[in-house]
Amino acid sequence: MPAQSQSTPVRALSFAPRPVPLSATLAVNEALARKKRQGVPVLPLGFGEAGIPIHPALTRELEAAAGRGGYGPVAGSAALRAAAAGYWTRRALPTDPSVVVAGPGSKPLLFALLMSLGGDVVVAAPSWVSYAAQTSLAGAEAVRVATPPGEGGVPSPALLADAVVRARARGRTVRTVIVTLPDNPTGTIASEDTVRRLCAVARDLDLVIISDEIYRDLVHDPGHAVPSPAGFAPERTVVTTALSKSLAAGGWRLGVARLPDGPFGRELRDSVLGVASEIWSSAPAPMQHAAAYAFAEPPELAEHIDRSRRLHAAVTGAVADRFAAAGASVTRPEAAFYLYPDFGPLRDVLREGHGIRTSSDLTGLLLERYGMGVLPGSAFGDAPAALRMRVAPSLLYGEDDEQRLAALASPSPAGLPWIAGALDRLTEVLGDLIETADVGEPVPA
Amino acid sequence: MPAQSQSTPVRALSFAPRPVPLSATLAVNEALARKKRQGVPVLPLGFGEAGIPIHPALTRELEAAAGRGGYGPVAGSAALRAAAAGYWTRRALPTDPSVVVAGPGSKPLLFALLMSLGGDVVVAAPSWVSYAAQTSLAGAEAVRVATPPGEGGVPSPALLADAVVRARARGRTVRTVIVTLPDNPTGTIASEDTVRRLCAVARDLDLVIISDEIYRDLVHDPGHAVPSPAGFAPERTVVTTALSKSLAAGGWRLGVARLPDGPFGRELRDSVLGVASEIWSSAPAPMQHAAAYAFAEPPELAEHIDRSRRLHAAVTGAVADRFAAAGASVTRPEAAFYLYPDFGPLRDVLREGHGIRTSSDLTGLLLERYGMGVLPGSAFGDAPAALRMRVAPSLLYGEDDEQRLAALASPSPAGLPWIAGALDRLTEVLGDLIETADVGEPVPA
Repeated sequence: MPAQSQSTPVRALSFAPRPVPLSATLAVNEALARKKRQGVPVLPLGFGEAGIPIHPALTRELEAAAGRGGYGPVAGSAALRAAAAGYWTRRALPTDPSVVVAGPGSKPLLFALLMSLGGDVVVAAPSWVSYAAQTSLAGAEAVRVATPPGEGGVPSPALLADAVVRARARGRTVRTVIVTLPDNPTGTIASEDTVRRLCAVARDLDLVIISDEIYRDLVHDPGHAVPSPAGFAPERTVVTTALSKSLAAGGWRLGVARLPDGPFGRELRDSVLGVASEIWSSAPAPMQHAAAYAFAEPPELAEHIDRSRRLHAAVTGAVADRFAAAGASVTRPEAAFYLYPDFGPLRDVLREGHGIRTSSDLTGLLLERYGMGVLPGSAFGDAPAALRMRVAPSLLYGEDDEQRLAALASPSPAGLPWIAGALDRLTEVLGDLIETADVGEPVPA
Repeated sequence: MPAQSQSTPVRALSFAPRPVPLSATLAVNEALARKKRQGVPVLPLGFGEAGIPIHPALTRELEAAAGRGGYGPVAGSAALRAAAAGYWTRRALPTDPSVVVAGPGSKPLLFALLMSLGGDVVVAAPSWVSYAAQTSLAGAEAVRVATPPGEGGVPSPALLADAVVRARARGRTVRTVIVTLPDNPTGTIASEDTVRRLCAVARDLDLVIISDEIYRDLVHDPGHAVPSPAGFAPERTVVTTALSKSLAAGGWRLGVARLPDGPFGRELRDSVLGVASEIWSSAPAPMQHAAAYAFAEPPELAEHIDRSRRLHAAVTGAVADRFAAAGASVTRPEAAFYLYPDFGPLRDVLREGHGIRTSSDLTGLLLERYGMGVLPGSAFGDAPAALRMRVAPSLLYGEDDEQRLAALASPSPAGLPWIAGALDRLTEVLGDLIETADVGEPVPA
């Protein structure tokens, strides 16, 4: 048989791999990079990268640990787990290092949690693109529940119970609800009352809460506290965070999870470590060393984060003003580097002038005609007909580290020429979008 | 409802997380670390770490890229993909950079491949612990097929067709066969004839071949070629490798996959990138830079790998001699830093003297009584009653980098005091094991 089959002509496989689209946030990043390489001017507002350089003190810590080649413990080094425990303890979430698990980003930690928990997952609508995608890869269903008006990131407690009861009535096993505090994509923070009510419902419904708090240190007003469900339902809440956003080290791939104390938390930890040991072994060792330094929050990093928070507030606010001036409705962002404008008030004009009926019609037109990269609300699980989009202005801070550092240092970064230029281009794009619609030049969507 | 439920006593979740044991190789590492912390002398022969320092030139490359904080493309940087393509092209596997995908280790790449391919997976018995575990996490079944005598890593082509046909007859969808060339756990290399025949059967059965070639550069005799299925069935073979073994940078988490060219390969690439974008985003950016340097194979690294290969050959051979002298049957290792002794010849003595009936009885006794960490053949999918174990001597090279560098530089490393001492301890342990069995002092297994 072997000799014979070697002489038959080579043929392709008869089956197709599972179709899995690229994560929408990463896809828009790559689409814009292609346009840029082609020489097309772009307005990159799609990708959730912090847009600032890594602080040199943090870089030095990575350099100091560059020679660490061993895998180390699956859960992460003792030094990193102790530092992360201290970080949470300083935020009114007393934490023992034994409940901390590190991974190559909070994204893989979230996936391991979903694999360990099993069952379907309630996610907010809208919510970060990967929650629902990971749920599907884990073989489960995402149950989408709308957020309360003006409060992103937390499924409305009033709607949650009904959605879970209905899913269970059709035979589904719902075990988890994911919240984002502060929120991506809306840049808002759910109120303490909403979080308390969510915790009460989760307790009644026997749900684990995963609280993605990766933007916690980027609240624009430092006096505005972030209510964590781990404070109200500690026995069932997992908290995740990472170096990616507040320290702009997304490319380092380092995240941590804080699991519940107690018997359930220990079982969950063992299961997550089992999954981690089979999928990724450990977080990168040199980054673990640097992260231990970062989670100890030395003054130079705290000041750096403080500056980046002011920068995000200033530019995100200026961008929100431009959208509002063009006629969109915008909830003022309170944290992180996102806003979520709603073109509902311009629905008729956009449909009649450009044939736009969905958020992806709108963002597709902005990308193709203007090189403006933003993500449609539908990518976040919003209703396709809702004309909302996520705008991430952080890549406007500079083309190089010199510009980015100047933006960090500036008392009024929105006035820096390269940022002001991008803001004016945004006004121009939005103006042209409305104007060409008004004068009745329909463009196929 | 919220107020009421907040006053009810806090209770645990009513369900249990999915039980996922820690990967056996990582578990034995952690068990030995615990014993060591307790002051128990240990003989660490369980964990597959290369046991040598990272070359300073490679460390310098990581330092130079420490400030890279951006995520970068999901598939990896253009420089890394070009370097990996050159690496394979120099090994008679012409490769375009577009078919290369990087990830945080080859372990997550393997998982993404299994998620993308779907269906059940044929693995060799014995084979690396994570193939079957990942298959199970991906929701599929591992079909175990014995290897030809003396040739580890490749399911016997003569048995493969029958196993797949039988699995399909009971309704299973078998799509993939995984091979390890050279092999972990046996340290052997399948012959070119076996690999060619495997490719022919895979073609007849419409199977994708995943060829894990992470030990390719650690063949003890440089004249001994490694036959890759990518040379014989390029349209269906994925090859993976990483920095973890030949360059001892396991803790850096950097692996690469070479996907097939052609329409199927492109579909598979898109799917793998989709999975990657949702589970881990990208490989760590500073490590990508260093890996691009490494895969270009500069002379200083080539010489380092050459030395490490000689060290692995010398110590693995010396350890094999000790097992053989104690009465075990050992196939001489040809590559990597593993051997797979068979205590079958001592079966009666071990059963009568110690109540040992399975490989895990045997390795459990060695761990508890002697602090000797090895892995039972059953962890690799071998029949539990087969008294085989995987022995990984690389952690004997030294307690610190000074000793490890001396081992790398030595013309006869097995004679260095710390390695000779460990070898003598091994002889003592094995002698005591047999002797206490002979004098009839049964110990509960």
